[in-house]
Amino acid sequence: MSKEVKPESVSLYSVSAAATPEQEAVCIFGTGDLGRSLGQRLLQSGYRLVYGSRRPHSCGPIPPGVQVMSHEIAARSASLVFVCVHREHYDFLETLAPHLKGKVLVDVSNNLKKNMYPEANAEFLRRLIPGALVVKAFNTLSAWALQNGPSDANRQVYLCGNSSEAKQAVAEIATKLGFNVQDRGSLSAARELEDFPLQLFPEWRLPMHLTIGLTAFFFFYLLVRDVIFAYVDQGKDNSFRIMVSLANKVFPIVSLILLSLCYLPGVIAAFLQLYRGTKYKRFPDWLDRWMLCRKQLGLIALALASLHVLYTLIIPIRYYVRFRLAANTISQIKENKTSVFDTTMGWRTDSYYSMGILGFGLYLLLGIASLPSVSNALSWREFSFIQSKLGYLTLFFCTFHTYLYGWDKFLFISYYKWYTPPGYMLCLVVPSVVLLLKLLLLLPCVDKSLIRIRQGWERTDPEDDSKKSLLAKDCQKL
Amino acid sequence: MSKEVKPESVSLYSVSAAATPEQEAVCIFGTGDLGRSLGQRLLQSGYRLVYGSRRPHSCGPIPPGVQVMSHEIAARSASLVFVCVHREHYDFLETLAPHLKGKVLVDVSNNLKKNMYPEANAEFLRRLIPGALVVKAFNTLSAWALQNGPSDANRQVYLCGNSSEAKQAVAEIATKLGFNVQDRGSLSAARELEDFPLQLFPEWRLPMHLTIGLTAFFFFYLLVRDVIFAYVDQGKDNSFRIMVSLANKVFPIVSLILLSLCYLPGVIAAFLQLYRGTKYKRFPDWLDRWMLCRKQLGLIALALASLHVLYTLIIPIRYYVRFRLAANTISQIKENKTSVFDTTMGWRTDSYYSMGILGFGLYLLLGIASLPSVSNALSWREFSFIQSKLGYLTLFFCTFHTYLYGWDKFLFISYYKWYTPPGYMLCLVVPSVVLLLKLLLLLPCVDKSLIRIRQGWERTDPEDDSKKSLLAKDCQKL
Amino acid sequence: MSKEVKPESVSLYSVSAAATPEQEAVCIFGTGDLGRSLGQRLLQSGYRLVYGSRRPHSCGPIPPGVQVMSHEIAARSASLVFVCVHREHYDFLETLAPHLKGKVLVDVSNNLKKNMYPEANAEFLRRLIPGALVVKAFNTLSAWALQNGPSDANRQVYLCGNSSEAKQAVAEIATKLGFNVQDRGSLSAARELEDFPLQLFPEWRLPMHLTIGLTAFFFFYLLVRDVIFAYVDQGKDNSFRIMVSLANKVFPIVSLILLSLCYLPGVIAAFLQLYRGTKYKRFPDWLDRWMLCRKQLGLIALALASLHVLYTLIIPIRYYVRFRLAANTISQIKENKTSVFDTTMGWRTDSYYSMGILGFGLYLLLGIASLPSVSNALSWREFSFIQSKLGYLTLFFCTFHTYLYGWDKFLFISYYKWYTPPGYMLCLVVPSVVLLLKLLLLLPCVDKSLIRIRQGWERTDPEDDSKKSLLAKDCQKL
Repeated sequence: MSKEVKPESVSLYSVSAAATPEQEAVCIFGTGDLGRSLGQRLLQSGYRLVYGSRRPHSCGPIPPGVQVMSHEIAARSASLVFVCVHREHYDFLETLAPHLKGKVLVDVSNNLKKNMYPEANAEFLRRLIPGALVVKAFNTLSAWALQNGPSDANRQVYLCGNSSEAKQAVAEIATKLGFNVQDRGSLSAARELEDFPLQLFPEWRLPMHLTIGLTAFFFFYLLVRDVIFAYVDQGKDNSFRIMVSLANKVFPIVSLILLSLCYLPGVIAAFLQLYRGTKYKRFPDWLDRWMLCRKQLGLIALALASLHVLYTLIIPIRYYVRFRLAANTISQIKENKTSVFDTTMGWRTDSYYSMGILGFGLYLLLGIASLPSVSNALSWREFSFIQSKLGYLTLFFCTFHTYLYGWDKFLFISYYKWYTPPGYMLCLVVPSVVLLLKLLLLLPCVDKSLIRIRQGWERTDPEDDSKKSLLAKDCQKL
Repeated sequence: MSKEVKPESVSLYSVSAAATPEQEAVCIFGTGDLGRSLGQRLLQSGYRLVYGSRRPHSCGPIPPGVQVMSHEIAARSASLVFVCVHREHYDFLETLAPHLKGKVLVDVSNNLKKNMYPEANAEFLRRLIPGALVVKAFNTLSAWALQNGPSDANRQVYLCGNSSEAKQAVAEIATKLGFNVQDRGSLSAARELEDFPLQLFPEWRLPMHLTIGLTAFFFFYLLVRDVIFAYVDQGKDNSFRIMVSLANKVFPIVSLILLSLCYLPGVIAAFLQLYRGTKYKRFPDWLDRWMLCRKQLGLIALALASLHVLYTLIIPIRYYVRFRLAANTISQIKENKTSVFDTTMGWRTDSYYSMGILGFGLYLLLGIASLPSVSNALSWREFSFIQSKLGYLTLFFCTFHTYLYGWDKFLFISYYKWYTPPGYMLCLVVPSVVLLLKLLLLLPCVDKSLIRIRQGWERTDPEDDSKKSLLAKDCQKL
Repeated sequence: MSKEVKPESVSLYSVSAAATPEQEAVCIFGTGDLGRSLGQRLLQSGYRLVYGSRRPHSCGPIPPGVQVMSHEIAARSASLVFVCVHREHYDFLETLAPHLKGKVLVDVSNNLKKNMYPEANAEFLRRLIPGALVVKAFNTLSAWALQNGPSDANRQVYLCGNSSEAKQAVAEIATKLGFNVQDRGSLSAARELEDFPLQLFPEWRLPMHLTIGLTAFFFFYLLVRDVIFAYVDQGKDNSFRIMVSLANKVFPIVSLILLSLCYLPGVIAAFLQLYRGTKYKRFPDWLDRWMLCRKQLGLIALALASLHVLYTLIIPIRYYVRFRLAANTISQIKENKTSVFDTTMGWRTDSYYSMGILGFGLYLLLGIASLPSVSNALSWREFSFIQSKLGYLTLFFCTFHTYLYGWDKFLFISYYKWYTPPGYMLCLVVPSVVLLLKLLLLLPCVDKSLIRIRQGWERTDPEDDSKKSLLAKDCQKL
């Protein structure tokens, strides 16, 4: 929804600057796809270029007008060398070590999977040629970006290395090529940079699996209750309901559960800290992992809630609904009944919609606040105000919305088809527990203990080890 | 809606790098909560660590395997010292001045409220130890981030200081710890950095108060007109309308007023410049403050408009509405009336909805363009095109939408219950005035004067001081 | 939807720092509007200031308490000079060359249109005064930002220059003034920076023209079919339909066409690469331009799809729709017909809505992923997963949604008013072709060839030049 034109235009003007003779040559080792793509781009940006190759006279096609030399000679003619060679073939570089002394070596390599080698490619390169200044860079870009210049997800060049002069030289080339440079520190970050292009939403995996599991469970559960039951019990074909009615039950149910699962780990962590009487003990691994995917849980829940909103809003234009409304009106007339407006019903349904709308509105706000550019601009006090205070308010609104939807239905046995409770009852369990526990944590005496613990205070008295006594003491003080 | 994995993974690999012996030690003064949290994080990232403490043998629990020494000895063993001590206890540092000469001192302190001290903590520190290179950093992070590494709103480390070498050293540590560093200039920015963690949406306060005031006023105004009047006059219980019907009047009314209040200060400023004949005189303070919160006013107005959209779209699934529609149909049949389709009514209501939708669509566009990452990518010419041209178009659509809603109702006395005009009439006042004044400013002769003034031209002729004569002259020239 | 307070507060505190005597003077050449605005801001941030002017005693009004000297004397008193003079008057600087040797010259100039001069202003300046260190900076800001400090779209100062010390000096001033600095490399980027303020959505122009053309065509096409035909054929006045019904046909039609036009160039490019047997030949210019505006096409399509959603959701509250529904019910009763619920119709319409909702949901996801701050945080593997895999899924959902809408209507001659097909049929052509071609590309043998070509493999065998034989070979291998 925005456009960043500069980098494209950079290339335009850099082409015209190609004539300036001041540009020092850069060298590329390797004439494979990577070397050719990068070379083309460097030429377009006005750099003088030499290739180093094992077989300088029989290498594949290279950009026109560029010299291919032996590695040795090529290395001598430039102070900066891009190593566009697969890691498996790095060995030959060892013999070139004397010629590469003091030169900047740019490692652009990636691996096919994580942890293929005990050390990062760039660190391996540094070990092979200790005299060179190794910089890891450009590897997070796609081949397309290396060949054609920056585009949307290919605007940032991450680099790392131990020599800041070497990094500066590489950063200048990257800027000239139209990229934004981000320095990631010393060469020990190379591993991280090499793993980056391999990742495909790693922190979304767990929440997605959970979502799929919950969705499948509730889909079949409600399919049995809403479609199969009607078919078996009354021989009615309700199957068309799958597309909208069923979806509009599954999505809000899963959404509310996921939202409450965002807040459950925080509550558990608080009780754990209260129980242990210290904040310095590590949480169990499962809790840590859970806490790290709260944002993803929340965003998936928001997506499902948005679908719920859309599915709800199209209700009145559905053929089925129009048919039913007309049929009701007609039957009222035929039976000459006069229905009376029920104010309680008016209050209840309107409150139900109002809670839903306010909850969804707050929910959107949480989603917007989690956009990187927005959350970066917030102080952590502001961020935690939004994600914690407003987050619990959202959870409260949405839970209340569901309770109002249920109203007194839980009292009537006819809703428990085949002895199963309706889906919305099942989904109320987790959010109710979370809200209850949070309420407990907000009791002044509990709150006070928790704040003290989070400020670094530790309960060291051995006989005072039970949480109860600590709480009791605090409560007495109040 | 995105994930930034790198920092988390940084910590992973930094742990494995902990064994590298090349890391120089860093020193932390103070073994309180802050010192411990930061120390833990530094250790995890592979740093060697020493603590300096007044009572090295009786200090609280510190991370295992770390030495605690006296301040003097600790300072000697590292070239970079984190001062994790409250400002009130800075005095003892004065005696250490000779040992801290040439060392980098990182001030991470915060205060409990703004303006507690005449000078920033970091500047106080620099005055105490003139020989040291003081850098203000890390103070904008939460304790959680200092202990566990970067997370959403805790990704940026702001730093400032007078020595760029010292800043470079601190920046390297922050990068290694997984944070993004932003240099905020010289140490005179320390005050700003120290105030940052204390702020809770300071520039949202005025617009929020205004919103709450307007909402409360219109809520009670409409409660009297729509609920209490019906009860007193006809004994009818309309109270259920509060939840949806009333909300759906209050939200759009306040939204439209807030939107027009976004554009009013700009119009006032233009007339002020025309009247004064110069752009170099400062605006009155209230106008400056008003102009600074236009963005917030607009975003709150957008939020309320979104609620209005949702409240409008659920209308047809409301129990009350369905009841009324069925009752209407039934009464038509019973009374055997044939209603005829009214084309004017069709035009009017459809135009009314269409204006509303287009206005809301543009409104969303303005909101998206004000996201930091989007507005940063715009040139100011593009930004002002969106926020000014499209903004006025939005205001026009929304105002027109409201006029179409009202149509000819203002002609009928029955709408003035208890002699009060309906809410939408009240809310049309401000936007109509703003649009009218803007229209005046767009008159060629006025526009030309304004452009000249904004290009730096000043009306100096003393007898030409009245705006009218200036305008008159310009108009004659045309 | 976020606020960045810092820069405003910077200026606040910088004012208080104005008293510090350590600030070195900066010099401004030129006392015009630009010089005055910039000077005011520098003074507010605590800088000592001198002006250089041709007529030091008769220049216009300057900020109070600042000295105006001749250019020579002013240049001598500062090591950094802002050149706030129009390019046409740069000539006088040549005579000052000896006094400007080694000084930092900041070129803040802009031109009135692109390509007015053969070289960038900053490069012209460097040629005039070869001994000075020229830095291009501040020119991308509005006069308002130069005078009052950073605001939304005026937060970034881009700078470029050949001397990194000179750039550092300018960057420090910009930071002190509250701006964020972004280094754009050597002075050859000056052209780009000078063109930036002139641009008004250049890459949106082509997509916008296309959108306007398509919208106009379909508007008149449907106006003829839906309104004029009814008037001519049956004498019925349907004109009120323009506002909602017609709009709600034009928007989704144009949206679907634009969405498919996002994916068509990628498919064409793939077939071109297959045909040529190499990825190293440049695409034709029209294809390159088309591919560069895919993002804009997609975002406009999303905006139109959102309008379609809103127009659809207000259907049930329209006067016309309510009138028709009531009329239907009444006629059913009068004619004493009993309509039977049609399960196929239930399935079809509900599927139609469901596809639309899911398609729109995915569409929103694509839109969010294209926000700069989100796409910057994605690896290119993740970005291409979203924009390609999910993008085609979106296109499929939306196309299927339209097919379900049409259903069997194409079989009935009554829908072809005046022998024209309905609009939705026309709009299905492009997406159907794109999906078909993409399906072809996903055939294992074609896919394999394409992957090999994209990894740098080239078909060199001259007699193997036809695409068919290559595919045949691959297919035989499978």
